[in-house]
Amino acid sequence: MSTSPLFVGLDVGGTTMKAGVVDDTGAALSSVNVPTEAEKGQDHGLAQMETAIRKAVAAAETTLDGIAAIGVATPGLMDIPGGLILDPPNLKPWKNVPVRQHIADRFQKPTAFQNDANAAAFGEFWVGAGRGCKSLVMFTLGTGIGGGIIVDGHIIEGRHSHGGELGHIKIELTKPRLCGCGKLGCLEAYGSATAVVKRTQEALHDAHEHHRHSSLHQLQRLQGELTARAIFDAALEGDSLAEKIVEETAYYLAVGAVNMMHSIDPDIIVFGGGMVGAGEAFLNRIRKHVQELAFAVPAAHTQILFAELGSDAGFIGSAGCARKLFYQHKWKREGE
Amino acid sequence: MSTSPLFVGLDVGGTTMKAGVVDDTGAALSSVNVPTEAEKGQDHGLAQMETAIRKAVAAAETTLDGIAAIGVATPGLMDIPGGLILDPPNLKPWKNVPVRQHIADRFQKPTAFQNDANAAAFGEFWVGAGRGCKSLVMFTLGTGIGGGIIVDGHIIEGRHSHGGELGHIKIELTKPRLCGCGKLGCLEAYGSATAVVKRTQEALHDAHEHHRHSSLHQLQRLQGELTARAIFDAALEGDSLAEKIVEETAYYLAVGAVNMMHSIDPDIIVFGGGMVGAGEAFLNRIRKHVQELAFAVPAAHTQILFAELGSDAGFIGSAGCARKLFYQHKWKREGE
Repeated sequence: MSTSPLFVGLDVGGTTMKAGVVDDTGAALSSVNVPTEAEKGQDHGLAQMETAIRKAVAAAETTLDGIAAIGVATPGLMDIPGGLILDPPNLKPWKNVPVRQHIADRFQKPTAFQNDANAAAFGEFWVGAGRGCKSLVMFTLGTGIGGGIIVDGHIIEGRHSHGGELGHIKIELTKPRLCGCGKLGCLEAYGSATAVVKRTQEALHDAHEHHRHSSLHQLQRLQGELTARAIFDAALEGDSLAEKIVEETAYYLAVGAVNMMHSIDPDIIVFGGGMVGAGEAFLNRIRKHVQELAFAVPAAHTQILFAELGSDAGFIGSAGCARKLFYQHKWKREGE
Repeated sequence: MSTSPLFVGLDVGGTTMKAGVVDDTGAALSSVNVPTEAEKGQDHGLAQMETAIRKAVAAAETTLDGIAAIGVATPGLMDIPGGLILDPPNLKPWKNVPVRQHIADRFQKPTAFQNDANAAAFGEFWVGAGRGCKSLVMFTLGTGIGGGIIVDGHIIEGRHSHGGELGHIKIELTKPRLCGCGKLGCLEAYGSATAVVKRTQEALHDAHEHHRHSSLHQLQRLQGELTARAIFDAALEGDSLAEKIVEETAYYLAVGAVNMMHSIDPDIIVFGGGMVGAGEAFLNRIRKHVQELAFAVPAAHTQILFAELGSDAGFIGSAGCARKLFYQHKWKREGE
């Protein structure tokens, strides 16, 4: 049996939570899914978290004695230093849930707490697309756009736990789209999977658009609703409307990337989430726009890559946060 | 005589360089100006830097023996870790100037090198508007918009020395203005003093605008050209066009602030440069837009303030960088 420390990472999502045991090198030894069942209330949610952690430990064929620290990531709104979920839109009706304290008390382990998108970015930084880098900005493209910023190994959590809310940087003032957050002109209203579908539907309904023969019309009739995936597939098959939507999406995401290149200027920009499935051709479109939009030096040198850890990034990153906490404690103890 | 260490900070600008001796608490003991005379070439420029440093030391009634370290800030394009000015648009015809090495060799002191806007932000962080804070984002409004980001006492220099280039985050895609940098839609093309003048001139020339009776027409005829200051003054005197321009400027700067609140989420956002003269009423306009544009938590808690150190921020911040370097060296030496 290895004598190096093991960590549990837990990534709590709106419908499912994923947990795994991760070793000191960032390798996942197990991974389990447990339903979140947020609607059953936060006490049930905390119990589900305990279950997920215990299942992950069992699946790794180890015991809690072998676990050095635990990391938990959740969606916002949250108070990261306080270890609290405050008022999470994806976890109704939870309010002011003391996640970190609860898990620390139950398992008697040092427990790290982090925003889910920040944790995913930290996972990619530690052992994913950004391994070996010093700084990374990650955009996670899904229903919304999540973000995480790592500089010199530290997560930019922000003073009010709003660091890396990259879906909500404003990229348009004149004709701003309405974002799911209720504000106008956010990146998320342009580049998320939801926005891809919405922009496509608008184009299909727009009499002025010359896309009457788009295969997407038929697809929408057949399937009832469009998905970002179907739109990306249609683009690959040569549908001109889908092609236009995909190209514009790459442009919007490039604007998001450039705004980070001109503020954080990281080693690497990582795109994660479902659109990773669109493949290298889509990434190349983003890169092309970045070349046009960014200053020459960062344009030439900033790596733009897809995430590598998929849906494991969150729990691996959470375990990475646990590991960091463990070594900080260790150094403190040894320094005493 | 004080036994605490003293530092020299030097802020090299396009026309003038400013240097001063700064003590361990951030108090400036002297401040001198020396012409940059960039057109005379970089060797002359380096000699002017030496002169400025010596004059600052003499003006503080101390000697070089009393100086623990030196900090130099310059405009970009630069290689911060390399200590080089590369190809600075404001310091033609300089190219690849080894500033840090030259100053370190000449004075035999630990020498810090930094971007000027970063140094100004660090000055405000250390002893200006941001003293006591942990993180700060500063926008310096002038011909362009400079920026600096401080998180947990560290300057976000960026991997390619492009950290904090906040004038060049994109805020508009549909009808983007052309920026001085040659790119489209940059914050600088909306919120800099130059942009204020340009937007006003456009409005004055636009037949569709109902500002035929604006006092700015007369001002332009009398003075030949408008200044941002004259436009802000006209707004105070009730000119409706000037009022509109000022209000829009506050909005654009609020968008810049919000983009940093949703990525860095600092304790404090600081605006420096000439527009500070527009006073608290202008700051209140920015704050009002921030309240509308930002998420509730950072909107409620992020301080939005004017810079306090004026044109001293650069040399004081440079001295602060020197001080940081000195204590790092000291700890290293004492740890050996």
